Amino acid sequence: MIKEFLQALDSEIAPMEQGKQPAELYEPIQYLMSLGGKRIRPVMCLMAYSLFREDWKSQVKPALSIEVFHNFTLMHDDIMDKAPLRRGKQTVHEKWNDNIAILSGDVMLVEAYQLLNQIQGLSLSQFQHVLARFSRTAAEVCEGQQWDMNFEDRADVQIWEYLEMIRLKTSVLLGFSMEMGGLLAQVDSATAQKLYQIGELVGLGFQLKDDLLDVYGDPEKFGKQVGGDIIANKKTYLLIRALELAKGSVQENLAYWIGLKQFDAEEKVKAVTEIYNQLSLKQAVEAEIKSYFDQAFAYMEALALPPEKKNTLLGFMTGLVDREV
Amino acid sequence: MIKEFLQALDSEIAPMEQGKQPAELYEPIQYLMSLGGKRIRPVMCLMAYSLFREDWKSQVKPALSIEVFHNFTLMHDDIMDKAPLRRGKQTVHEKWNDNIAILSGDVMLVEAYQLLNQIQGLSLSQFQHVLARFSRTAAEVCEGQQWDMNFEDRADVQIWEYLEMIRLKTSVLLGFSMEMGGLLAQVDSATAQKLYQIGELVGLGFQLKDDLLDVYGDPEKFGKQVGGDIIANKKTYLLIRALELAKGSVQENLAYWIGLKQFDAEEKVKAVTEIYNQLSLKQAVEAEIKSYFDQAFAYMEALALPPEKKNTLLGFMTGLVDREV
Repeated sequence: MIKEFLQALDSEIAPMEQGKQPAELYEPIQYLMSLGGKRIRPVMCLMAYSLFREDWKSQVKPALSIEVFHNFTLMHDDIMDKAPLRRGKQTVHEKWNDNIAILSGDVMLVEAYQLLNQIQGLSLSQFQHVLARFSRTAAEVCEGQQWDMNFEDRADVQIWEYLEMIRLKTSVLLGFSMEMGGLLAQVDSATAQKLYQIGELVGLGFQLKDDLLDVYGDPEKFGKQVGGDIIANKKTYLLIRALELAKGSVQENLAYWIGLKQFDAEEKVKAVTEIYNQLSLKQAVEAEIKSYFDQAFAYMEALALPPEKKNTLLGFMTGLVDREV
Repeated sequence: MIKEFLQALDSEIAPMEQGKQPAELYEPIQYLMSLGGKRIRPVMCLMAYSLFREDWKSQVKPALSIEVFHNFTLMHDDIMDKAPLRRGKQTVHEKWNDNIAILSGDVMLVEAYQLLNQIQGLSLSQFQHVLARFSRTAAEVCEGQQWDMNFEDRADVQIWEYLEMIRLKTSVLLGFSMEMGGLLAQVDSATAQKLYQIGELVGLGFQLKDDLLDVYGDPEKFGKQVGGDIIANKKTYLLIRALELAKGSVQENLAYWIGLKQFDAEEKVKAVTEIYNQLSLKQAVEAEIKSYFDQAFAYMEALALPPEKKNTLLGFMTGLVDREV
């Protein structure tokens, strides 16, 4: 089923920008969208829709709006983060330039709304509710990115602030993806709310898993450099918790490695990982992730669905949860 | 009446971003929106609406979406153009930084859609038509900005290309402002089309007037440096036409001033203006502007409206056309 979703999504993505002028504006969009990615968000939307209705093919364009929006945020975030690579390829602002990445990204955000405008079969108020929720979510994602940038210059970021930041930057869009699937299927608002919660909780677990994989991932499978966050002193859940928990010589050791301007990358990764081990942070994060996923599964159980639909959803979510990459 | 429109718009703008967090994201929006400006676009929208219906106060928020969209384009264009000033004050990327201007601009575009989503009283298909036209116009404005940037590196820009660029960058949004007023009043599609044409034609005349005022404006009234376009070799209608028309010693003289790296600004403005005078470009542009405005007035005459409504519209448009600033 997910394979079918992906095929239907990709067949809509392929012809999207072909021949549009000026090329400098539309080619970067086609480039970024064709770099692939797991298309988790529109798949979640179609998955949620098909829990309630069969004719999911009518919802491919609206679902795609979430993927286009997500890629818009990547294009602009990569400028802000001065990121050279995205999915192993040059970022748009590197391949073209900053101005083109700004303007192409703007057009992508407009295109996301154009796709959303393809929704059919809802009443005006149902449609406007989807639009309002989409826009609110979009603003929250921008808020999350701004908090993330603000945190770069702060040494006193608290765990709750970090969790709120990743909730806004990542989780709300996964929550909305599920919710939108429900809203398109015209579920009642309590069900839409549960779908949102499932997506948001999975999103939180998902992002923490990212933090964990950066340190403890299998280099063969991970695809990115293991320890990248450690090298860059990125304020992840692990580092923030370590700064909270470390005392005495462990605290001094951590401060030493964070403060070092010149270092051997491998040596720093090894040393900081050792500190994380001493503080049992792997176990702590795993427990936190498990608690998010457990809550998500509880919401799934509470959905009024026939058993085979519930199993499909559980299977899909378990797949997301158990990822190693 | 216009005064009433402006008051109603400003009373919606003032509280828009108050207290929203993070401040780095929302304060720049409030800052830019409060710098003022003539609010021509939402005024045109409310004006068009009130040609057909009395209850224009219900349409202030939707009309404002166009102003927020316009200011979003200013925020991002100013980054791309490295502009230090906007309406005599620091631009957002100067006062804060590029990243904040990118992200605040993104939120403004989302807010434009949120305001549009306040539309009431239309059917779903009427509402989706407004949304589709808004989005198409928004994409066109981005296309215009991209063409404008492309033209900077080209020496062979033709008049028709320049006119198409300013149509996209400026005029389509003025056209849509009028059209949207009509669509909100549920006029038939032929009338909506006429309203669009009026706005687009006035927009073209308006932008050419800008090019003209830069050279021939009264320094006391103009507010900007007279000759700014000449100093920067900006490819305006005047310069492109001069490059087309100049022959012999006039051509050499023009090439000399354009190629000069070091020059006295006042001297260059005087010399290039003299070339424009020799080529009678003031008269040529004035004739071009008059032809756009004449076409716009013909569309106005063709609108099926009671005489007093038509007079209101004619008066408003004449005010726009006769501006000296």
